[in-house]
Amino acid sequence: MTDAAELTARLIRCPSVTPEEGGALVLLAELLEGAGFEVHRVDRNGTSNLFARWGAKGARAFGFNGHTDVVPPGDPASWTHGPFSGHVEDGVIWGRGATDMKSGVAAFVAAAVDFVTETPPDGAVILTITGDEEGPSKDGTTAILDWMERNGERMEVCIVGEPSNPDVMGEMMKIGRRGSATFRIRAKGVQGHAAYPHRAKNPLHALTRMLAELTAEPLDQGTEHFDPSGLQITSIDCGNPASNVIPEAATAVVNIRFNDLHTGASLTERLEAHAARIAGETGVALTVTAEISGEAFLTAPGPFVDMVRDVVSRETNRVPVLSTSGGTSDARFVKDHCPVVEFGLVGHHMHQVNERVPAAQVRQLKDIYQRVLERFFA
Amino acid sequence: MTDAAELTARLIRCPSVTPEEGGALVLLAELLEGAGFEVHRVDRNGTSNLFARWGAKGARAFGFNGHTDVVPPGDPASWTHGPFSGHVEDGVIWGRGATDMKSGVAAFVAAAVDFVTETPPDGAVILTITGDEEGPSKDGTTAILDWMERNGERMEVCIVGEPSNPDVMGEMMKIGRRGSATFRIRAKGVQGHAAYPHRAKNPLHALTRMLAELTAEPLDQGTEHFDPSGLQITSIDCGNPASNVIPEAATAVVNIRFNDLHTGASLTERLEAHAARIAGETGVALTVTAEISGEAFLTAPGPFVDMVRDVVSRETNRVPVLSTSGGTSDARFVKDHCPVVEFGLVGHHMHQVNERVPAAQVRQLKDIYQRVLERFFA
Repeated sequence: MTDAAELTARLIRCPSVTPEEGGALVLLAELLEGAGFEVHRVDRNGTSNLFARWGAKGARAFGFNGHTDVVPPGDPASWTHGPFSGHVEDGVIWGRGATDMKSGVAAFVAAAVDFVTETPPDGAVILTITGDEEGPSKDGTTAILDWMERNGERMEVCIVGEPSNPDVMGEMMKIGRRGSATFRIRAKGVQGHAAYPHRAKNPLHALTRMLAELTAEPLDQGTEHFDPSGLQITSIDCGNPASNVIPEAATAVVNIRFNDLHTGASLTERLEAHAARIAGETGVALTVTAEISGEAFLTAPGPFVDMVRDVVSRETNRVPVLSTSGGTSDARFVKDHCPVVEFGLVGHHMHQVNERVPAAQVRQLKDIYQRVLERFFA
Repeated sequence: MTDAAELTARLIRCPSVTPEEGGALVLLAELLEGAGFEVHRVDRNGTSNLFARWGAKGARAFGFNGHTDVVPPGDPASWTHGPFSGHVEDGVIWGRGATDMKSGVAAFVAAAVDFVTETPPDGAVILTITGDEEGPSKDGTTAILDWMERNGERMEVCIVGEPSNPDVMGEMMKIGRRGSATFRIRAKGVQGHAAYPHRAKNPLHALTRMLAELTAEPLDQGTEHFDPSGLQITSIDCGNPASNVIPEAATAVVNIRFNDLHTGASLTERLEAHAARIAGETGVALTVTAEISGEAFLTAPGPFVDMVRDVVSRETNRVPVLSTSGGTSDARFVKDHCPVVEFGLVGHHMHQVNERVPAAQVRQLKDIYQRVLERFFA
């Protein structure tokens, strides 16, 4: 039987701060090859990634996705135990990646290995593991999915093993994510003296009017599976040092986390129309530039979601909430390939000093994943 | 008879860019002493100023105020004639200070000299000339007025010789000015992730709400002698480079030009109350810091204003509008000493390259000032 907790500690000892592979994928490749997996390194533009399949190509496949790269540890002296020590004490594993998410990877790797060894299924198990989820994410999971597309590899469903529980194992799984888009609104007016505003056009007056309108009312009230969309002004900058001068230009940045009532395109259109109206009213030119980080998506409740939820409920004695909250994850890429849900550990200590995880929790997660595999192929 | 146009050209040849005296006050001191004036240099903290009185100390005195310092010429190569050449061609005097306001000083100096020489009055004429009106104005006219206070010198009324006519001689005199105040509004909230706004408090949302309210409605509709007060946002700055982060703090700068319905204190109170309300509604701390550059003031129409207006009407065939428009001038200091009006040249080319003035206009202004003196002592 493969110990997911021990594997977690071994992975932590690989210093795989993005974009360094740090030995983590090499370690996993050896382990998986030893268990009969066909393993491919799918590196692209300096990013290291791993594809592993047990079973025949083209067979009905259950997939997992995760990452071995970690965020920097900060000052190692601030850590009680070294960030890459994988120190284990009193049943707790210490180190960067202990929750996000070497533990999650260790859990699904251990589950997959034991599952195919103990109860070889009539089908395939596919593991997609990237070395760049914490960085730009341009050549990580997307590189693996591109490679799979080219090579006729396909997962029927996929679990992303990111921490999904806020506080207690089993309380939450994620079946989608809100989209994220960033808009830069540039206001260009006419410079002038503050005492003679009729000869100038103040870009800040137009900009604050538009922004105050944008933040006055919520974008929506939420939908069946999504929280209300949220809009945050993240910066306004003008840089005019002279308090007697009306500035020529200013820029605001607005970030929107949106649910399935919107798309990046619909929000862009909405903000452009709003800007055009304010420009018409004020004579200040307002230009909107959009950067869509990800669209909202949902894996609608159905047999796959129900099955995972049922397994989690039996193993944890909690019925997980089906959530679409939080930031982005690589599920936003996987969702274009197949239905995807996220279930993993409790997200405490993520990205913090003294990141650590109870070994028992990692082993519990491994058991959940193994039960999911058994149910999928039952 | 003293030629105000020639004196203007001689003053232009003194390179008196603030804070340099450049020989201008030395030249005027010699001229005035030669005409029987008692002259005192009232220098303070490196700023050069001149006080001159003809007639007995304590006698009923008519005053003039002006400045010989000028703003920098920029690139001399951009000028058709050198900025300190005092070049005269086709009846036009060229150079920095030609309108703002070596010409105005030359006109009242020439008028005063000829008046006391030709028709010595039963009273006194006091000239207050500073070398720092274009700079910080901390040790200029205020230094002279402080010195006069200490030495028992007093003007009954005063004309500031700044350019007061927008386009044509005689169309406008100024009987007051709006006040000016600058407010820094600092918003301090709680930083957080843009995807989790409930854990943060966005200072930009509070700030834009307050600013949009401030600019939505005019402060007032104007008064008998004043335009409506005006409010301009001159900068908003946050400097947050991360579009997925709600910033902790941001600052806005607001400049208000206000009429006699307000004071610096009443506006400060108003903005502080507004900030407190928004802070209560949003949980974002809003701090208002005020810098009052000058209060609104008015020399109410009456015998003095009527007399100056009557002289201008007779000399120019135009009835000047009694205005309180425009930026600030040293009249904001003189008004605490005695009733003050501003009348001078046409303000074309002020602070611009190729600043220049028709010699005839300077001579006409000198005549107006001399008639004013005659009428005052008649």
